[in-house]
Amino acid sequence: MSTMVWTRPPVGVISMAYARPFTAEHVPLFARMRKAGMDFVELLVPEEGEIDPARAGTAAREAGLFVALAARVNLQRDLSSDDPSCHADGVAYLKRCVDVAVAMGARIVGGPLYGAPLVFAGRAPAPIDEARRQARVERVVRGLKEAGAHAAAHGVVLAVEPLNRFETDFCNTARQAVELAQLVGSAGVGVMLDTFHMNMEEDDLPQAIRQTGAHLVHFQANENHRGFLGTGHVDWPAICRALSDVSYAGPITLEPFRRTDDRLSVPLAQWRPPAHDEDEDLAHSGAFLRACLHTAHRS
Amino acid sequence: MSTMVWTRPPVGVISMAYARPFTAEHVPLFARMRKAGMDFVELLVPEEGEIDPARAGTAAREAGLFVALAARVNLQRDLSSDDPSCHADGVAYLKRCVDVAVAMGARIVGGPLYGAPLVFAGRAPAPIDEARRQARVERVVRGLKEAGAHAAAHGVVLAVEPLNRFETDFCNTARQAVELAQLVGSAGVGVMLDTFHMNMEEDDLPQAIRQTGAHLVHFQANENHRGFLGTGHVDWPAICRALSDVSYAGPITLEPFRRTDDRLSVPLAQWRPPAHDEDEDLAHSGAFLRACLHTAHRS
Repeated sequence: MSTMVWTRPPVGVISMAYARPFTAEHVPLFARMRKAGMDFVELLVPEEGEIDPARAGTAAREAGLFVALAARVNLQRDLSSDDPSCHADGVAYLKRCVDVAVAMGARIVGGPLYGAPLVFAGRAPAPIDEARRQARVERVVRGLKEAGAHAAAHGVVLAVEPLNRFETDFCNTARQAVELAQLVGSAGVGVMLDTFHMNMEEDDLPQAIRQTGAHLVHFQANENHRGFLGTGHVDWPAICRALSDVSYAGPITLEPFRRTDDRLSVPLAQWRPPAHDEDEDLAHSGAFLRACLHTAHRS
Repeated sequence: MSTMVWTRPPVGVISMAYARPFTAEHVPLFARMRKAGMDFVELLVPEEGEIDPARAGTAAREAGLFVALAARVNLQRDLSSDDPSCHADGVAYLKRCVDVAVAMGARIVGGPLYGAPLVFAGRAPAPIDEARRQARVERVVRGLKEAGAHAAAHGVVLAVEPLNRFETDFCNTARQAVELAQLVGSAGVGVMLDTFHMNMEEDDLPQAIRQTGAHLVHFQANENHRGFLGTGHVDWPAICRALSDVSYAGPITLEPFRRTDDRLSVPLAQWRPPAHDEDEDLAHSGAFLRACLHTAHRS
């Protein structure tokens, strides 16, 4: 049993579990999230016209939730791009994310901030020669340094997330994300991990968490297929012991957006709204995770 | 301990672990595969000009290997397509695969035979309305009935493989593959499973194998990240107990084509040739799997 005091991480939910896009009409969902035991909501950084950041932040706080943010990159907002306008738009977007975070009172902006989307941009993996590889890394590091300075100046942290091999061809593992954060070397840039992607790419999930160590500033707890916790094969007690080992005290987001419609020819990777009220399932995922976190620290 | 006699499955390797495309110059690799303990080679169904099927089959047999085949679909060979020429090309391709199997002395042609490729065709997941969903299912079932009849008439089995959500939007789970095989209802159509995809999509991998049961005609044993067996977190003893429970005696293919180059901005989903001689690693993966199969049957 560890004798160290560990501030147990707050547990929240991604807005996509309820609605996408998340607009003013969805503000009453904050109270439901809180009632389901959530400590915070992870919102997608709003696009123009989706929701007013300051009002959304205030509404969340009034419902008893704090806010974390998830950035949305694409081929036009792409630090890795060899098109200077896409790279510049990527930097400008990350700075705007920081400004939105300030307006909302959020401290974390996470996601595949380096850009380079694959399947969701309709892009197939293709070989990258060594000169282009180095140039991509250099552009991403340069862009993250600039955005990270803006973040640090405003008390915000940009959390770089490795994605699985089909969602990006830039950064797939915790080791790569730590390497990237070290190359950037900014107080405004850390690492986030998502067990959905880790389940595909890591040799050993708990070990990857331990090796990320103090770089870890955000975490997403998802089953192998993105269902509610306990419906798949992710080893939650082992994950929580690793989080305890590195004294992780940042947010942990649940993203249960796998839907139960399992008919042939229904695209599983396409987001769909819930078919029924999932609040009780969400509450149990939160309770499950908190129990694992509690027990992990006592082991 | 089971008292039933179980013919333990033969263990083989996919040709892509060595080379892609696999051409006449690669025939000496058959002897290396055999020396690494492989019972068979799984070859991609050769495209025009890649390798002569009859000669390749003879060369494999002379090296002590039998042959299984993996079909390659694309947007032009796509049973699911609403373009009649793509659907027709999909049926014609599967029939040609059967003819190639006959020429090579192969009994199994596996893969995502229904078509509907996503990421490797540069296609993003998109919603499919109910009328189109039903029409896709109807086209795939009709196409597999026709190709399955051709297969059955020649002693070949077409093995339908569910792929993960990013590689197809038609069939992602063992349950869906069994449903498809049942809708087709042909002695020439069965199901194959690959633990790489299962690791992403199934609630419970051993249970999925048990529920596939007698439909299972082909199996691919891959780590969560496609590395050599034992380098990831797939629970091999539990997988092998499930295979024993359903008395699976078909081929089991190893597909260790994750490469060790883990630098930032190297596309992980892009196939690359081995950087060094991996024969010893492959031999150990085979020994590992055979030991698990042996022990599973005695438990």
